Amino acid sequence: MNLRFFTFLVLSVFFTFNQEVNAQERTAEDTDAFFIKEIYGKALNEGKCYDWLTDLTTNIGGRLAGTPQAAAAVEWTKQMLDTLALDTVYLQPCMVPHWNRGDKEIVRIATSVSGSMDLRATALGNSQGTGDLGVTGEVIEVKSLKEVEALGDKIKGKIVFYNRPMDNSNFRTFTAYGGAGDQRWGGPSKAAEYGAIAVLTRSLTTRLDDFPHTGSMSYNEKFPKIAACAISTNDSEKLSRLLKAGKVTVYMRTTSEMLSDKPSANVIGEIRGSEFPDEIILVGGHLDSWDIGRGAHDDGAGCVHAMDVLQLMKRLNYKPKRTIRCVLFMNEENGLAGGKEYWKQSNAKGEFHTAAIESDSGGFTPRGFQTDGHPDVYVDKHRQLTQWLPLLEPYGLGFTTGGSGADISGLKDQKGLLIGFRPDSQRYFDYHHTEIDNIDAVNKRELELGAASILSIVYLIDKYGLK
Amino acid sequence: MNLRFFTFLVLSVFFTFNQEVNAQERTAEDTDAFFIKEIYGKALNEGKCYDWLTDLTTNIGGRLAGTPQAAAAVEWTKQMLDTLALDTVYLQPCMVPHWNRGDKEIVRIATSVSGSMDLRATALGNSQGTGDLGVTGEVIEVKSLKEVEALGDKIKGKIVFYNRPMDNSNFRTFTAYGGAGDQRWGGPSKAAEYGAIAVLTRSLTTRLDDFPHTGSMSYNEKFPKIAACAISTNDSEKLSRLLKAGKVTVYMRTTSEMLSDKPSANVIGEIRGSEFPDEIILVGGHLDSWDIGRGAHDDGAGCVHAMDVLQLMKRLNYKPKRTIRCVLFMNEENGLAGGKEYWKQSNAKGEFHTAAIESDSGGFTPRGFQTDGHPDVYVDKHRQLTQWLPLLEPYGLGFTTGGSGADISGLKDQKGLLIGFRPDSQRYFDYHHTEIDNIDAVNKRELELGAASILSIVYLIDKYGLK
Repeated sequence: MNLRFFTFLVLSVFFTFNQEVNAQERTAEDTDAFFIKEIYGKALNEGKCYDWLTDLTTNIGGRLAGTPQAAAAVEWTKQMLDTLALDTVYLQPCMVPHWNRGDKEIVRIATSVSGSMDLRATALGNSQGTGDLGVTGEVIEVKSLKEVEALGDKIKGKIVFYNRPMDNSNFRTFTAYGGAGDQRWGGPSKAAEYGAIAVLTRSLTTRLDDFPHTGSMSYNEKFPKIAACAISTNDSEKLSRLLKAGKVTVYMRTTSEMLSDKPSANVIGEIRGSEFPDEIILVGGHLDSWDIGRGAHDDGAGCVHAMDVLQLMKRLNYKPKRTIRCVLFMNEENGLAGGKEYWKQSNAKGEFHTAAIESDSGGFTPRGFQTDGHPDVYVDKHRQLTQWLPLLEPYGLGFTTGGSGADISGLKDQKGLLIGFRPDSQRYFDYHHTEIDNIDAVNKRELELGAASILSIVYLIDKYGLK
Repeated sequence: MNLRFFTFLVLSVFFTFNQEVNAQERTAEDTDAFFIKEIYGKALNEGKCYDWLTDLTTNIGGRLAGTPQAAAAVEWTKQMLDTLALDTVYLQPCMVPHWNRGDKEIVRIATSVSGSMDLRATALGNSQGTGDLGVTGEVIEVKSLKEVEALGDKIKGKIVFYNRPMDNSNFRTFTAYGGAGDQRWGGPSKAAEYGAIAVLTRSLTTRLDDFPHTGSMSYNEKFPKIAACAISTNDSEKLSRLLKAGKVTVYMRTTSEMLSDKPSANVIGEIRGSEFPDEIILVGGHLDSWDIGRGAHDDGAGCVHAMDVLQLMKRLNYKPKRTIRCVLFMNEENGLAGGKEYWKQSNAKGEFHTAAIESDSGGFTPRGFQTDGHPDVYVDKHRQLTQWLPLLEPYGLGFTTGGSGADISGLKDQKGLLIGFRPDSQRYFDYHHTEIDNIDAVNKRELELGAASILSIVYLIDKYGLK
């Protein structure tokens, strides 16, 4: 082939791709690869997710369930969806727990070989405060709940300090997180079982830095509800060094408390399917976030991804065969009340989710999707996804098995496919549940690529279904 | 299998993996997967690349070839390599061009419908200044070199403004960079050919921001050497809007000049192979950087990657069969003199590089490697790499064809494999050739994963060779 002819061919392809044709003409004639390329182009040039995320995180900020900020986020989301000319936008009411942090936490080394100093601390979500006067106790360091059991009576009257780090050598940061998370979730009640008066936990991050990371804990009702704070990894190292040098007593004061449940809502917007309206493809994230940061990666990113999927569909003039439903869930962080309400109502109505896709792993460069499903159908449906790999690999996407998202996990019995969006995870725990999870931590282009990636599989599932 | 037995099995594997055995015992008995896991663990916990990069960028800073900073970088690198107990560390002298930026550039809109204002500008590397008095001319906007040819005489006496953006819709940012780069590289002489008095170019980035991006240009000796500056993308948009509203004249003053060549050097350190010392596996980056930033991603990251490969090998007590040679090249940015000297000497000595691996795409999360080679051997050698995919895919790595690195490109006739390390590229052009390419733009964990990824394929190539 001579060069001139080659150039002609390349230009033909180029102009075909750039033609403004409407979606109906295009889907009949053009290839999926072309349409996915167009999705990426639109997301990168006309995506709204970054502007939305800037607005949500800057003007509303942290939005823990039950707070006025969470209520504002519900209203804001509904207003944004209302601008998209969807078939329906509505709130799905639910009752949520209302945990209140109270006063700024004090975790102060009262006596040690180096004297007194304050540690950077944040009360664990759902934890009960120390009471107004605080508590003072000798610190005992452990690396696991098992070690507390082994120490038995030696725990009595002490402040237990859980200091097992996330395994920094693990390439998979979420696995490392899972491997250390029991200290935060179950550590306080395990310590209380043996008579501890309070708990400190090392923050869950692979970095050594000065930011305490909050997150949920859960009390075992059989034991006293003792106070619990996370301290920064640098301060955890410091406390551990002091303990090696001698006895350390800590004064700790938190006034957090669980108040009575509050009414709140999931926010839902949908485009009804033209051929199979009863087959639902859900895209979602969770609207609530922790209070100490602004919930940019967790999970403002997931919310604006889901919203942008609808926005971009409209902009591409793509008319789905199946119903595309965007669900912004409330209260994932400390109760999952929104998710549970959604499952209950969906199952009661006999709905069928062909697929449910949650984005709740941040707004970083997309790496792919992880799936889960009912054993009766899972293997076949996952295999069907993988046949689209040649279309998605050029965008750095792959499929793995083993999980999806907390808010959609209860839809498994409908026997559709549950899918978790998985961006690069290496920076996620730098920001997770901290005061620095704000818009500065989000790269516009990386965020937009997430919306494009999710829309690409929504498009394929909508077009071909999942048998 | 009952749960207790399963737990026993898991623990057995765990303890085997965590045993401190020396490399000779291990390579004979354990699997490659285990060793690669150990490489990642060591890199994440005992890597030196981040500390080195902090030192290089903070204490030396920008290091354009021929400057005192570049000389300091050569000395610093040699000192660092000297601490690693390598078999040999030496400098390979070469002569490099010495371009001097001169005074802070002035690019000022002198007259427009909105009056006068300064634009954020940086002289293009290798460009000649306007002279002390500067030049003033009417601006004419074009989107391509072809458009300059078509305009012909209308260019005469004008300042040509090349304003074709990088294609933001392209997922592959390096392809988008390549698609717009001719304006910077060849734009000035093309404009001079038709009588232009100076050139402005839109900065090469997908973002709209306020940072001008410098970079090399090259004069065609047949035409006058006119001055050339890049202006920020925001200012490019502004200038374009003003041009739509009416006539714009710009005053431009740069005092950059090409001085006489200076002596400099590549820095080389190596561990000699125990079985095949004449088969060389090169790992490298380029030590020089642009002057306006601190060359953190470009290419301090590549230098510390290569250095850390040797450091980690020593720390793992791995004794290579083949010679592992770390080469920090001088003058990639505006002349490639170090690379050319290296090729000349290597070819003259009849050396054979089994593989040459360059890291010159930043310090982001690794995505894989891109390869190139002599047509006689390339397909087979690339295919051999891909057989290791099952070992590398768990770390997010893949292989693609089509390129390697500028500094190693001249080794092709030795018929080894040329390999470019390819991290995620979505943020690269946010920082590339700007004042913000400094340590703050680099994530420690992402950088360390780069060293681990490169060492992993060095290990496989060293162990098995490439036939």
